[in-house]
Amino acid sequence: ALATPALAQGALPEVRWRCASSFPRSLDTIFGAGEHVGKRVAALTDGKFQIRVFSAGELVPGLQVADAVQGGTVECAHTASYYFVGKDPTFAFDATIPFGMNTRQINAWLYAGGGRELLQEFFAGYNIHSIPCGSTGAQMGGWFRKEIKTVQDLSGLKMRIAGIAGNIMQKLGGVPQQIAGGDIYPALEKGTIDAAEWIGPYDDEKLGFNRVAPYYYYPGWWEGGLNLSFYVAKAKYDELPQVYKDVLESACRDATLETMAKYDVQNPQALRRLVAGGAQLRVFPREVMQACYKAAFELYEETAAKNAAFKKVYEPWKAFRDLEYQWFRVAESTFDNFVYLMHAQEQQPRR
Amino acid sequence: ALATPALAQGALPEVRWRCASSFPRSLDTIFGAGEHVGKRVAALTDGKFQIRVFSAGELVPGLQVADAVQGGTVECAHTASYYFVGKDPTFAFDATIPFGMNTRQINAWLYAGGGRELLQEFFAGYNIHSIPCGSTGAQMGGWFRKEIKTVQDLSGLKMRIAGIAGNIMQKLGGVPQQIAGGDIYPALEKGTIDAAEWIGPYDDEKLGFNRVAPYYYYPGWWEGGLNLSFYVAKAKYDELPQVYKDVLESACRDATLETMAKYDVQNPQALRRLVAGGAQLRVFPREVMQACYKAAFELYEETAAKNAAFKKVYEPWKAFRDLEYQWFRVAESTFDNFVYLMHAQEQQPRR
Repeated sequence: ALATPALAQGALPEVRWRCASSFPRSLDTIFGAGEHVGKRVAALTDGKFQIRVFSAGELVPGLQVADAVQGGTVECAHTASYYFVGKDPTFAFDATIPFGMNTRQINAWLYAGGGRELLQEFFAGYNIHSIPCGSTGAQMGGWFRKEIKTVQDLSGLKMRIAGIAGNIMQKLGGVPQQIAGGDIYPALEKGTIDAAEWIGPYDDEKLGFNRVAPYYYYPGWWEGGLNLSFYVAKAKYDELPQVYKDVLESACRDATLETMAKYDVQNPQALRRLVAGGAQLRVFPREVMQACYKAAFELYEETAAKNAAFKKVYEPWKAFRDLEYQWFRVAESTFDNFVYLMHAQEQQPRR
Repeated sequence: ALATPALAQGALPEVRWRCASSFPRSLDTIFGAGEHVGKRVAALTDGKFQIRVFSAGELVPGLQVADAVQGGTVECAHTASYYFVGKDPTFAFDATIPFGMNTRQINAWLYAGGGRELLQEFFAGYNIHSIPCGSTGAQMGGWFRKEIKTVQDLSGLKMRIAGIAGNIMQKLGGVPQQIAGGDIYPALEKGTIDAAEWIGPYDDEKLGFNRVAPYYYYPGWWEGGLNLSFYVAKAKYDELPQVYKDVLESACRDATLETMAKYDVQNPQALRRLVAGGAQLRVFPREVMQACYKAAFELYEETAAKNAAFKKVYEPWKAFRDLEYQWFRVAESTFDNFVYLMHAQEQQPRR
């Protein structure tokens, strides 16, 4: 295609898009990332380019927004790509995969490590242009009615956990369940399920899980970081004047920085309140984590062996991840661990 | 002041600014953050708002760019605020302070934790509007001709290290030196100095320190993260139409994300090459780190006792840092440490 020449500012077209979010309005930060894009796009174009964001279910169900973009029901959507692993597990690389990378590493891969280029090729098959748009940071491991002490405790465990993480749980005898946000609380209360993962302290607090499943496990090894995505129907994206493409890219980058900062401010405060409200923090035992790790990479190898699209992304992704780990273990992680240790020692006498 | 109403797009003024960078062109990533702002601002305004970036020394010396903005020599500058701790140590909070926060935590404080508002008040005294613009991540501890095994080894150590970190070294008997980038190599080679800190593997590699000071220490406890800043003369900023203010903010946020991603891609590769080229990685002994940590917070308390501006930022900054540490120790750091451990174990048999 020929490059669209940037139009003279005076001649910029009025553009009105509808965006279907996968998230409810109550998740103000994650839903807010989509709204942030709308606000920034309007601010940067003096109101000529407008994107109105609809919450999950308003136009289409939250988990059908990819279809809605593909089918032309809406011009764009805000979502987490791992919701679509049922179509193809390759979608997960655009969001996160269990025992994958943290937020910085995901951003490095997407923005400067070749990740977006690899994924763009994959998304073209769905006529979608996917732009990174929001981060949650490492998530929590969720709420459990009973403590998890050994791998055997996963056997028969009915847990609300989706996608690839659910498949890994299954390999270890767990029984993954797909349950919408609003139905988790009663299921946990009645004991229909034994555990449920959601997001992190700030979002989890709203659902009140601490009252019915007191053990709050960490880390959410299936989400060391989560990249959210802004999907645009490829034909609609290609029609935009170059300056609007730049505006949209800027707005999404802004949302990435903004949501991460908000979560990092809100989560610590929410965690304090949850612990004060009876939540009992527990770390997953190393033995359990190791068994899940082993099962995860077995699953990836099996998937790569039978899915060429997955293999094409997985191999460079894995090489990139390995390189990042080597570097982050040096300055970044040593700094973090040292200051956290010193801080913990300072807190001790006060307890 | 009344809000400037957004102008109709057709009526947007032509704006041409000169930006004085504190960095040489050879530091392509850190210098590039300023250039990235220029490119994005032009792209988002269809070329009507242009910022031309000059490297350190082209218009003014790199460490005098704050004066240049204040004095009206240039409209704007790209710098690291800790270069100006000689004016007031409070400047450092806009960049980083020893044993402070990591990149995510700094961003959280600035963008959503009240940091920018606090600093804006401080910068108003210099007629500067400071916008976060670029990150380096945790830096390395620098290059040493001899190994550091005890706190006593710091005594008499002549080290190229600037600002507050230099003051901390001095408290422990070190002899901090201020030496420009280009003069470090000959000083290390001749033994005029015993050690020198610079940035991280990607930038350090260019100066070839591994050939004259083989011990490459980590972490740079004085820079667990570094926020770079885009300074605008306040009067010039206030004159901008609102849409240009939004454009500038977007461009700077973009540069923050972009530089961090680039460093995170480049540093691991450079570190591998440096180690292959003879650099010997060493972690600072815990005893040494603890002594520096103690000296750092003594210094902050002393400074706060005699400098009201410092105290006004330090106290909420410290409270914010403590809250962040509590949260990051939970999901984020546990995830990171686990995956790095597993990865290290996988590498073992190949060695």
